[in-house]
Amino acid sequence: MAGGAGISGLYGVAQGQSYGPNSHGTARSLDFPLVKAEIIAIGTEILLGEIIDTNSAYIAQRLPELGIDLNYKSVVGDNMGRIVETFERAWNRSDLIVCTGGLGPTEDDMTREGIAKVLGEELYVDPALEEQVRRWFSGRGYPMPESNIKQAWLIASARGIDNPRGTAPGWWVERDGRVIVCMPGVPPEMERMWQREVRPELERRSTGEVLVTRTIKTVGIGEGTVDEMAKPLYGVPGIGIGTYARADGVHLRIGAKARTREEAWERIRPVEEEMERIFGSAIWGRDEDTLEGYIASQMHERKTTLAVMESCTGGLMSNTLTDVPGSSDYFTAGFVTYQTQQKIDLGVPGDVIIQFGTVSPETARAMAEAARRKAGADYGVGITGVAGPDPQDGIPPGTVHVAVATPEGGTHSLSMTMNQGRQAVKRRAVTTSLLLLRRALLGELR
Amino acid sequence: MAGGAGISGLYGVAQGQSYGPNSHGTARSLDFPLVKAEIIAIGTEILLGEIIDTNSAYIAQRLPELGIDLNYKSVVGDNMGRIVETFERAWNRSDLIVCTGGLGPTEDDMTREGIAKVLGEELYVDPALEEQVRRWFSGRGYPMPESNIKQAWLIASARGIDNPRGTAPGWWVERDGRVIVCMPGVPPEMERMWQREVRPELERRSTGEVLVTRTIKTVGIGEGTVDEMAKPLYGVPGIGIGTYARADGVHLRIGAKARTREEAWERIRPVEEEMERIFGSAIWGRDEDTLEGYIASQMHERKTTLAVMESCTGGLMSNTLTDVPGSSDYFTAGFVTYQTQQKIDLGVPGDVIIQFGTVSPETARAMAEAARRKAGADYGVGITGVAGPDPQDGIPPGTVHVAVATPEGGTHSLSMTMNQGRQAVKRRAVTTSLLLLRRALLGELR
Repeated sequence: MAGGAGISGLYGVAQGQSYGPNSHGTARSLDFPLVKAEIIAIGTEILLGEIIDTNSAYIAQRLPELGIDLNYKSVVGDNMGRIVETFERAWNRSDLIVCTGGLGPTEDDMTREGIAKVLGEELYVDPALEEQVRRWFSGRGYPMPESNIKQAWLIASARGIDNPRGTAPGWWVERDGRVIVCMPGVPPEMERMWQREVRPELERRSTGEVLVTRTIKTVGIGEGTVDEMAKPLYGVPGIGIGTYARADGVHLRIGAKARTREEAWERIRPVEEEMERIFGSAIWGRDEDTLEGYIASQMHERKTTLAVMESCTGGLMSNTLTDVPGSSDYFTAGFVTYQTQQKIDLGVPGDVIIQFGTVSPETARAMAEAARRKAGADYGVGITGVAGPDPQDGIPPGTVHVAVATPEGGTHSLSMTMNQGRQAVKRRAVTTSLLLLRRALLGELR
Repeated sequence: MAGGAGISGLYGVAQGQSYGPNSHGTARSLDFPLVKAEIIAIGTEILLGEIIDTNSAYIAQRLPELGIDLNYKSVVGDNMGRIVETFERAWNRSDLIVCTGGLGPTEDDMTREGIAKVLGEELYVDPALEEQVRRWFSGRGYPMPESNIKQAWLIASARGIDNPRGTAPGWWVERDGRVIVCMPGVPPEMERMWQREVRPELERRSTGEVLVTRTIKTVGIGEGTVDEMAKPLYGVPGIGIGTYARADGVHLRIGAKARTREEAWERIRPVEEEMERIFGSAIWGRDEDTLEGYIASQMHERKTTLAVMESCTGGLMSNTLTDVPGSSDYFTAGFVTYQTQQKIDLGVPGDVIIQFGTVSPETARAMAEAARRKAGADYGVGITGVAGPDPQDGIPPGTVHVAVATPEGGTHSLSMTMNQGRQAVKRRAVTTSLLLLRRALLGELR
């Protein structure tokens, strides 16, 4: 059972050892609710942005289902003064602090010292942990550098958390009805520790107030307008609603808290239905849905196939479509025709290019039709434009024409100009192509 | 000049308007050093990890060269109480606060209100900003939703910062010798605002010590060995050296602090030269260099061309190559042949596929040669494999074969198996192909 699993990896408890009545006592008896949480990421590399902190997002995504509210996230460098300051504040305002990083063997790994300072407790080498760390090294056939002894440190209120993927055990600190969890910064080590040890233990403590969210993804309406349209629902008690502008349209997030997931869903359902009534076909997806995933499901459902001929997006359209597992069932071929000769070789009529130019709606449509023909697919997508940064034949960067050729024989194009960087232009051109393809599949293009 | 450029986009100053003697006064006269900075990211989606906060990393990476020390990074949700608390603390301990997000038109965009509360100043609609926001909408042919009027709000100590890429102007708040810079959360909007307006203005203010870094990118040597080889340099006074294992090899970062950039470079140069001696041809790039950028420069230099035929990477190879501006000069064509028939249509001998299977080194080589022939290019790249998550014809996911066909007539392949997710497999297959292509260009393949 979860509690057991959670406890099993916690040294001292698992092995029936006591590190002073304090921590041991709390570990057994206490069963207070952990409600207000904050995350602290420690490390100069993260602070300076040399590493993107994905751990905090990983943890943040997993707290709501435990009924734990996350209020703050912070990043501190390897600086004792600021580490102590940050932990002191967290200790005073939160009852669960989840921190990652600073558990290594080097001098600038200060998480343990920092926490000891904040709680006014002494650091000591724990025999069980020391053996564990030494075993890790001997198991790999080399002796433990003495600096690694730090990784066997504990304080009275702390227990070690098993880390089979690395040398640094985690810390489970428990005192005065509050908990500090320390995990290594290396994502796979952190994730395993979270799944096997920390999550089950927190689940055991959880009050049961669960937050459930449902994201509704719309397209074709501005954020301000979506906000206006959804306002009537903002009053609904026990429900929180947020709007977020995204590359693939405006997202609406409905959140509900309740004792059980079922209860929460009962609150969300009517609001969701009302939103479906308000936004109708502007809604293209939910939660984790992606546009390419939507296209994939439609293609599978209709047993239709798709081919792409793209120039300015340089393969990003094909790449996006093939990020979906199983896309080989409907994605027959992609042609990245960066040069005019290639377009012609693959079936784009030369006179269209001569008459209208390579960057034109006409050429985009001819490319969509050529892709369809050449690959014997039901649908064809054509994309041509100037990704930039420089103009091309006098056409400004950010000019893009996308087209979709349908089995019904119609070919539809859409043109845009954007004032963005090369890669942003590529991304937006692909998003627009996916949206145009969606409309074609919905029969909205006539 | 930088200062001018920085100022030009700041409403009120650019237009000679005054928003009260306070801000206007400081804007003109003050020239205090901004030394201690912190970053605040605002938004529940970021706090809950629904969005990875790349903005903070972007800003953090760019502060050191301005001689500004970054001490803290924090994330707050769309909660007025916590936004105010976070800004109050920041205002008391830092002299530069850079924040992103919460500038949208909706009710849960509270950054402006939060700052107004902390500084005890009144919000008012600024005519210049209002006109700007309305123009943005009318320019796109629809009326401004009234909720967007928020984006024209200012306080006495604040000036608007130009944002041609979106509706939300930034805020430049200046009082009591401290500065708060607010930028939109949408990365392209934030990045342009940083480059065109914020950075130049901060540069003008910057004093103190400048940190200059030089990153040397190596490939083919493990991090431990790189570390050993570089050790002799670790002692050099006034120099910091770090090693980082990355997907494209091991990076060495040399850092030096000095009063001027020139001084810092004088310290770095001899260390860099020594590293070039130590690592020789294992070094493939510096600083912002990318493998695709390296390939691009080599292709330009030799006036050679390149074509790609890829299946399991689904267009990612072409997309990566074409992320480089000017790649159309050497990238002639990319073929995403997700189906066997397509491979054969484009010149892969059917009997090779029949004899060895679509996922084999032989087929990868045949694809490289076919790409080269079909597109009349000097070099051809072929990639075939199983991206996963499911096996294909009994071949486990993560099996990838990449090949490069050279003008000298030689074709070289490399095979690998990895235990990773679909998109990670695609990325690593592309990195490996780029590294193989690099070796071919260096004449290392014989």
